[in-house]
Amino acid sequence: MPKSAPPSPWRDDLGARVRELRAERQWSQETLAERADIHTAYVSGIERGRRNVSVDNLHRLAVAFDIQVHDLF
Amino acid sequence: MPKSAPPSPWRDDLGARVRELRAERQWSQETLAERADIHTAYVSGIERGRRNVSVDNLHRLAVAFDIQVHDLF
Repeated sequence: MPKSAPPSPWRDDLGARVRELRAERQWSQETLAERADIHTAYVSGIERGRRNVSVDNLHRLAVAFDIQVHDLF
Repeated sequence: MPKSAPPSPWRDDLGARVRELRAERQWSQETLAERADIHTAYVSGIERGRRNVSVDNLHRLAVAFDIQVHDLF
């Protein structure tokens, strides 16, 4: 998997959803990164639709947000 | 991403769900692979919880099954 994947509507949708969930909690990207145990730059890339996020990282995000993975979609 | 990721409960759950959806349709792994435009060996790896599936491939599977991505979880 390339470090930074090209844009796709699917990734854009996921990125917008992650940004929305983070904004609801008034968390910075750094806060989400710490809670999800992923790099801040990776959070930024997800929100910009640049990352082809894996199931493991989807679960890390869901755990950080205290939601189910299906609520990310 | 390693070609074959170590087992995780999350991947096991996704693999079981993919197998279930495929069985409901009475599709072979080859049929699902063709419909999702992914390799048959990759489908097998997903069902065995060995693959850390990316968002792009989750969408390929959802399109093949004619469901939403959140229905994979």
